[in-house]
Amino acid sequence: MTSNRVWTLRALADLIGAELQGDESCEIAGLNTLQSAGSGELAFLANSAYQKHLQITSATAVILKPDMASAFSGNKLLLDNPYLGYAKLTSLFDPAPVAEQGVHPTAFVDPTAELGSGVSVGPNASVGADVILADDVVVGAGCVIGDNTSIGRGSRLHANVSVYHGVTVGADTTLHSGSVIGADGFGFAPGAEGWVKIHQLGGVTIGDRVEVGACTTIDRGALDDTVIADGVIIDNLVQVAHNVKIGENTAIAGCTGIAGSATIGRNCTIGGASCIKGHLTIVDGVNISATSFVNKSILEPGSFSSGTVATATKTWRKNAVRFGQLDQMAGRLTALEKVFASHNEDKQ
Amino acid sequence: MTSNRVWTLRALADLIGAELQGDESCEIAGLNTLQSAGSGELAFLANSAYQKHLQITSATAVILKPDMASAFSGNKLLLDNPYLGYAKLTSLFDPAPVAEQGVHPTAFVDPTAELGSGVSVGPNASVGADVILADDVVVGAGCVIGDNTSIGRGSRLHANVSVYHGVTVGADTTLHSGSVIGADGFGFAPGAEGWVKIHQLGGVTIGDRVEVGACTTIDRGALDDTVIADGVIIDNLVQVAHNVKIGENTAIAGCTGIAGSATIGRNCTIGGASCIKGHLTIVDGVNISATSFVNKSILEPGSFSSGTVATATKTWRKNAVRFGQLDQMAGRLTALEKVFASHNEDKQ
Amino acid sequence: MTSNRVWTLRALADLIGAELQGDESCEIAGLNTLQSAGSGELAFLANSAYQKHLQITSATAVILKPDMASAFSGNKLLLDNPYLGYAKLTSLFDPAPVAEQGVHPTAFVDPTAELGSGVSVGPNASVGADVILADDVVVGAGCVIGDNTSIGRGSRLHANVSVYHGVTVGADTTLHSGSVIGADGFGFAPGAEGWVKIHQLGGVTIGDRVEVGACTTIDRGALDDTVIADGVIIDNLVQVAHNVKIGENTAIAGCTGIAGSATIGRNCTIGGASCIKGHLTIVDGVNISATSFVNKSILEPGSFSSGTVATATKTWRKNAVRFGQLDQMAGRLTALEKVFASHNEDKQ
Repeated sequence: MTSNRVWTLRALADLIGAELQGDESCEIAGLNTLQSAGSGELAFLANSAYQKHLQITSATAVILKPDMASAFSGNKLLLDNPYLGYAKLTSLFDPAPVAEQGVHPTAFVDPTAELGSGVSVGPNASVGADVILADDVVVGAGCVIGDNTSIGRGSRLHANVSVYHGVTVGADTTLHSGSVIGADGFGFAPGAEGWVKIHQLGGVTIGDRVEVGACTTIDRGALDDTVIADGVIIDNLVQVAHNVKIGENTAIAGCTGIAGSATIGRNCTIGGASCIKGHLTIVDGVNISATSFVNKSILEPGSFSSGTVATATKTWRKNAVRFGQLDQMAGRLTALEKVFASHNEDKQ
Repeated sequence: MTSNRVWTLRALADLIGAELQGDESCEIAGLNTLQSAGSGELAFLANSAYQKHLQITSATAVILKPDMASAFSGNKLLLDNPYLGYAKLTSLFDPAPVAEQGVHPTAFVDPTAELGSGVSVGPNASVGADVILADDVVVGAGCVIGDNTSIGRGSRLHANVSVYHGVTVGADTTLHSGSVIGADGFGFAPGAEGWVKIHQLGGVTIGDRVEVGACTTIDRGALDDTVIADGVIIDNLVQVAHNVKIGENTAIAGCTGIAGSATIGRNCTIGGASCIKGHLTIVDGVNISATSFVNKSILEPGSFSSGTVATATKTWRKNAVRFGQLDQMAGRLTALEKVFASHNEDKQ
Repeated sequence: MTSNRVWTLRALADLIGAELQGDESCEIAGLNTLQSAGSGELAFLANSAYQKHLQITSATAVILKPDMASAFSGNKLLLDNPYLGYAKLTSLFDPAPVAEQGVHPTAFVDPTAELGSGVSVGPNASVGADVILADDVVVGAGCVIGDNTSIGRGSRLHANVSVYHGVTVGADTTLHSGSVIGADGFGFAPGAEGWVKIHQLGGVTIGDRVEVGACTTIDRGALDDTVIADGVIIDNLVQVAHNVKIGENTAIAGCTGIAGSATIGRNCTIGGASCIKGHLTIVDGVNISATSFVNKSILEPGSFSSGTVATATKTWRKNAVRFGQLDQMAGRLTALEKVFASHNEDKQ
């Protein structure tokens, strides 16, 4: 991936605090993997499994751990965490267009909304009454922001995001297209003639540096707010139900569902397609594997999993039937053990 | 959650048919839980597990079951179903903005569309040819309504909802942001050179008082309509495939997928992240647990489940391997039982 | 489903290459199932389970396999694959409105965008800088197309689709409402103060004749592109993560999640609500059942499954507990077998 901007290797070394060995004036116009990098590109070796590619890479320079320095004779940046170094440099080479400042003539902004300096409101977006957009906020084309919502400095809403009324979003937060923040929590009381809707009187509070993936939904609270703390990262198509609380820097992979009033700690990772039951607590530092169903609180850190893994369908069919007989099998096993025990007693 | 409107306790008692004990003129400006309620707020005790909070609540009044009356000395509303009473009152305190009547100047409404009285069409919405919007319909900002679609009296589409052509939505129904009604069912026939698309000639019929969650998708039928009956409530990120029929008052939690031509009865509950196979029948009054995979018809009411639950990953890994050996284990168990039986015969 | 257009049975026979028996001038105005078809409608018998309906159908004509010809005395079209014949005829009777050519006055098209002939840009859509829309492309109402994206001839974006910058879509491809193409892949490096975002420098390349379902998300690549090959069909609410590659004519059912850098071959089918782990390979011709979790590469064609199926909750609860004891049960079984073996040795 080569961009239009060019940096000297020296400039990049300084930006990430790496030790430079080789030609500090060589020009870098992009980042790439060891295998795919060409001339003018900077590659990185983060995983020793790829060390073999060092010999054949066409990269102009490589980020390496210091103890790997001798394995590569070309230009290099030595850094304890090459992957983090690569991550930090990606923003320099991002071809994403910079949003034009100002309100696009096709957008609608309610006269009571307050817009900071440098704000961008894209084509056909809609900004409601008493909304506050802090400095440098970007509202993408087709976004809709409900009344009384505030968006913090530098946050970006990509195209077609929907934010309901009474939502608070912090600074430097990114909401991807199709995400929906503040829809009604799924609250209904059974009545004589069907479900009676419980109007959701709370809101949503999202912190700073949060990332919300495409088509991810975060519902407003029933009475209090649903809360997403600073630094939380959420992938696509994730459902966060009403009154969920998610702690700082927790990461949630795609297709996960978190039911109402679940409280998830800080620095957790939740694998894709997981399901977290409502009204439970997961403490800080818990790692949940993909496809897990967490149906009770997890009160100590560690790694937790559930599910079964794909095998040949013919084999699976038999095993799935046996799953339905498991308790009976356990009973048969216990019965055999008892017979054995009494048999051995007889012999004595 | 305190709102701008204030009601006397007497007015609230009358609205929900509760017996009032205490100061009938005290003013209520919001609803809250026993723990969080402050002055001017009405709380409720629906679950006896929270009874302890009665002693310490700062609520101005509490909704209680009659047999709990003696447990609370403050102002109270006595009602057999306090949770239902709370549900009914939530609409009074909902801070959601009321949509402005009329067509916003940035919206596009095809001249052949028929709009009832009190209709609201928000900024940058689009209403197609021959669409009928009954009285008091609210079409949120950024919504798109396809040709020949009709929306019943009082129904509300939140921002950025997409409704295709030929869809019928009943009265008092709510479609949340990002929901998509009437996209093509996933129908393709395998041909010599790949998949041949089966154009989906049916539509979608949605009843009265239905709730459709954010980013939920309900596909149009192949030949007949996909049908969602009156009073059905559907959470976020639910997939309803073509020709599915869902009966009255059934509730479907988030992240659930229902495959084509499944027929689901009335008064069912389907837990989150469930998967219902196509072309099967689930009768009235069935409850499906979260994460269940229903792969054949359920022909009598009751509670059904599948899946496994999260445990420590180290333990899970071993058990997941054993799942793949289950049929073999069952065979070993049977072999042992046979040896035993013949051994005992020998002894006789 | 009767449409406004009418065709003679002869015309339809010629279109699908069927042998016509009966009245070639009879007029067909719609398609339907054997059971529901009325006068003027053409039905089909694809599955012999429905043969009984041949006797009672009111269809004006039926598509049948040649060896079934004697089972129906009415007008018929004989074809080896009646279902494929039906599929091919559906486009004739599709009531979907034809998009009006030209740019709607409420749409915004950047002056640097290039629009081919016959292009339609709907109300309140937004087309970015340097976008290329080939001939006959339809951009639905409320769609947003980012800068430097190109859409191939005849492709259609339904309402409210979001396509980011730098995306390439082929010809005759359909993107359904709410789908999001090119959002950032979920890439973050753990740093001392939380997650450091890895800007996603790649794009998305989608081939010809691809179908992307409603609210399906396809993320852009980290360095290279995410690639969806020609003829791939994807249902609703599917997550395709960064750098995934999907081969020609593979079909993916709804609610499936595919994690980053997974490579999926050609002519695969992936059942609904499945989860495919990242960085693995699935070869051509693999069939994955619904709700499967594929956690390692599948290197030969065939059918693969995982999961458990719904049973009565009371039974399931016991079996789910036993699942957590499976490895211990296997140990007990082995212990019993050993005791038996030594016992038998003693006897000899």
